Amino acid sequence: MTSGSSSHLDVRMRGFSARALVAQVREWIDEESIPLSGEEVGIAEAHGRVLAADVVSTIDVPEFHRAAMDGYALRGAETTGAGDYNRLAFEIVGESLPGRAFAGRVQAGQAVRIMTGAPIPDGADAVLPAEYASENDNRVEISTAVAPQKHVAPRGEDVKQGTTIAAASRRLRPQDVGLLASVGCATVPAIRQPRVRILATGNEIVQPGDERKPHQIFDANSHMLGGLVARDGGVLESCSALADSREAIRDAMIAPGADVVLVTGGSSVGAEDHAPMVLAAEGELAIHGIAMRPSSPAGMGKIGKRLVFLLPGNPVSCLCAYDFFAGRAIRLLGGRSAEWPYASRSVPVGRKIVSAVGRMDYVRVAIVEGCVEPLAVGGASILSSTTRADGFVIIPESSEGVAPGGEVLFYQYDLIS
Amino acid sequence: MTSGSSSHLDVRMRGFSARALVAQVREWIDEESIPLSGEEVGIAEAHGRVLAADVVSTIDVPEFHRAAMDGYALRGAETTGAGDYNRLAFEIVGESLPGRAFAGRVQAGQAVRIMTGAPIPDGADAVLPAEYASENDNRVEISTAVAPQKHVAPRGEDVKQGTTIAAASRRLRPQDVGLLASVGCATVPAIRQPRVRILATGNEIVQPGDERKPHQIFDANSHMLGGLVARDGGVLESCSALADSREAIRDAMIAPGADVVLVTGGSSVGAEDHAPMVLAAEGELAIHGIAMRPSSPAGMGKIGKRLVFLLPGNPVSCLCAYDFFAGRAIRLLGGRSAEWPYASRSVPVGRKIVSAVGRMDYVRVAIVEGCVEPLAVGGASILSSTTRADGFVIIPESSEGVAPGGEVLFYQYDLIS
Repeated sequence: MTSGSSSHLDVRMRGFSARALVAQVREWIDEESIPLSGEEVGIAEAHGRVLAADVVSTIDVPEFHRAAMDGYALRGAETTGAGDYNRLAFEIVGESLPGRAFAGRVQAGQAVRIMTGAPIPDGADAVLPAEYASENDNRVEISTAVAPQKHVAPRGEDVKQGTTIAAASRRLRPQDVGLLASVGCATVPAIRQPRVRILATGNEIVQPGDERKPHQIFDANSHMLGGLVARDGGVLESCSALADSREAIRDAMIAPGADVVLVTGGSSVGAEDHAPMVLAAEGELAIHGIAMRPSSPAGMGKIGKRLVFLLPGNPVSCLCAYDFFAGRAIRLLGGRSAEWPYASRSVPVGRKIVSAVGRMDYVRVAIVEGCVEPLAVGGASILSSTTRADGFVIIPESSEGVAPGGEVLFYQYDLIS
Repeated sequence: MTSGSSSHLDVRMRGFSARALVAQVREWIDEESIPLSGEEVGIAEAHGRVLAADVVSTIDVPEFHRAAMDGYALRGAETTGAGDYNRLAFEIVGESLPGRAFAGRVQAGQAVRIMTGAPIPDGADAVLPAEYASENDNRVEISTAVAPQKHVAPRGEDVKQGTTIAAASRRLRPQDVGLLASVGCATVPAIRQPRVRILATGNEIVQPGDERKPHQIFDANSHMLGGLVARDGGVLESCSALADSREAIRDAMIAPGADVVLVTGGSSVGAEDHAPMVLAAEGELAIHGIAMRPSSPAGMGKIGKRLVFLLPGNPVSCLCAYDFFAGRAIRLLGGRSAEWPYASRSVPVGRKIVSAVGRMDYVRVAIVEGCVEPLAVGGASILSSTTRADGFVIIPESSEGVAPGGEVLFYQYDLIS
C-alpha cells in the first residue's frame, strides 16, 4: 500500500509510482467502513433495512388460545366416534369471532360457532372444521371426530414473550417486518443508510437533455452511480456536475451532509486531475493507483469520518471501481454484507480469457452455450460492453488467464429482484 | 378450475366444492396480467424499471476520436524506435482537454498535451501515455513507441448512431441507465409500475403502536405485503385496515386508482368472509380454493381490468399466496419476469419432507450441514417459521414427499440485493 507517501501529493503527468493490490485496498475499506449509528424507522419503511439492535417481543403471539380453522369450538372428547354414518349433534350456544370472544363457557353437548383467529371459549378444547358440519336451527351435526387441542393454536405458539425475534445486523425480509409488526413494533431500530454525494467532474460533461457545445459529452457516470448506490442501500444526498476547478471540487468534497463522496473523473495523473490533490490536502489520500484493469487510476481516502472515492471517468472503470470499492464501503456502512450483490456460479470457460500477472482483471463476459466467453471489446470507455455482457469474471493477480475448459466464478449482472 | 360456478357465490360455512390446481391458477394469472402501458420516466428514476419500447441512439458515442489515456497526441509513426536508451523529443504546441479541443493541426515533430476523453487533434493519430514521457519547457521526451491509433478511441466506438442500445422489455441495470444517459436520454419509456392497494380486513386487527382491546391482534400482513410489493416493482397505492363489513370491503375494493387489490383475511368460507362474495358480485371470482398447503382458501378474480387477490389471514398462507399468485401478477403487469425473485439451487434433503398427493406443498426449510430440513413447526399461523427458515421448497401434487438423500430445488428467502 502506498498510504502516506509524499509522492501522492502531486502525481499529475508523472504516473503512479506504485499500485496497491486489490486485497490491500479492501482491507483499508473494511477497517474504515464501520456501520453507522442506529435510528428509529417506521415499520412501513423497514423492509430491507438492517437492524441496529436485537428486538425482543414484549408479548405472546397469540395472546390467547385461538381457532386455527373456521368451524365449531367444542370438547374434543365428545366427538369420538363421529363419522358419515354416525353424525353427532351439538347445541350451538353462541359464536366467537376474531376480536369478539364468546363470553360464556361451553358445557357438555354444546358448541360455539368459531372463525379462524377467534379466541377459543372457556370449556372448549378443539375446533371441528366447518367442512365436517351441517347446521340447522341451533344445532350442528358433525361427521368427523377431533381430538382435544385439534385446530387450536395455543397462546405464544408463534412468539413467546421475551424471545428475541430478530437480532441486530439482520437485514429485514418482508416476513421479518410482518413479525415485528405482529408483536406491536410501530418502529424498529435500524442502521442509518449512508448518505452519498456524487460529484461528476469535467468541463466536457453535460446533462442528458441539455444543450451541448462541440466535444462535450453527456454525463453517464452519475446516472449509473445513482442506481448502484440505491441498490447497495445508500441514499443519494446530492448529485452535481462540476467543472475541472480545484476550488469547486474542494468545496463540494468538504461540504457537510455526506457519509460518502464519489468523485467521477479527474482521478488520475492528468494535468486537470485535481481530486487526488484536494483529497490529500483536506484529509488523507490513502490509496491512489490500484493493480487492476480497468480502474487502475482509482483512489480513495477520508476527510474526518467521511470516505471519499475517486472513480475514473471512463464509465467501465467507474462501474468496476464502484463495485470493487465504493459499493463495498456503502454496504458495510449500512450494515449489509460486504459481498457483491450479484448471483454467482461456477461456469466453464468457452474461449480463452487473457490476463496479466500482477494485476487483477475484471472481464466482461457473455454466456454462450453454457460457457463464459470474454467480450471482444476494447477499453474501459466502452460502456455498451457492460450492457451487452451477461456478467463478469475476476482473474486474480497470480494468473495469466484461463484456458477453455477451465472453471471460473461467473457473476451475473442481472439482479434477481 | 372452478371459474364461473354458481357454487362460489356463497360458500360460507359450507366448504370448497373443488380446488383449482396451482398450474391452472398460474395460467389464469398469465392470461390476465398484460404489461401496463408505457410512461416517460426521468433518467434519474429509471434504475430497475422495464423499458416499454426500444431505445435507438440518435448520436455516435463518442462523436469524435478521443484520447483513451492521459499523455501526448502525436503521429505514431514518428515514435518508432523510442525507448529508455533512445528518448525522442517532440515540440509541444498546445493542449487538448475534455470539452476544449486543440484548435490547430499537429505537424511532424509536434505533440499536443492531451487528457483522457479529449478530442484527438487533426494531424495526430496516437496518444503516448504520460507514464512514458517527461516534459521540459515546450518539449516532451518519450521513452516508448506507440503505433498509429494506439490509445485513440474512434468515433462511434461505444455506440453507433441508429443502434438499438436497449430493447423493449429490458429491465434496466445501472449501466443501462448510464448508457441511455450517454446518448442524451433525459427520459426513457418505461412500463408503468402497478399501483397496488392493500386491504387488511378483520375486526380483530389493530395497527402496531395503537391501543388494543381484549383479543385484538396487531396487523402483520399488510406490513409484510408492503415489502413484497416493493420488491416486485409495485407501488403502494394505499393500505387500509377494514372491519368485517361487506359494505366497507366493497367500497374499498371498487374505489378507483389501483391496478391490483390485495385483500387479506376473510377469504375463506367463514361466516364473516365477505370478500369472495363481494368480488363475485362486483366482477368475477375466477378462482376460489386452491389445491395447496398452506393458502388453500386463497382466491382471485377481476373487476374490469383490476386484478383482485383474496389472501388468507394466516400470515404464512398470506405470504405463500402472495408469492405464488399476487406477486407473479404484479411482476408481469410491470413487465418483469414471472419467475420468483429468489435465488435457487438444488440441495439434498437431510430429513424426510412429508407431503400429500393431490396438493402442492410450500415447505419452510432450514439448511443444516448443507442439506434441507423441514422446520418442525405447526400451521400457517406461525409467521416466525418464515423468519427462522432459510427458505422453502415446493413439493408437487404428484409427490408424497422426499426421502433423505433426494434432491430438491431450494429457494433462498434472503435476497441478494
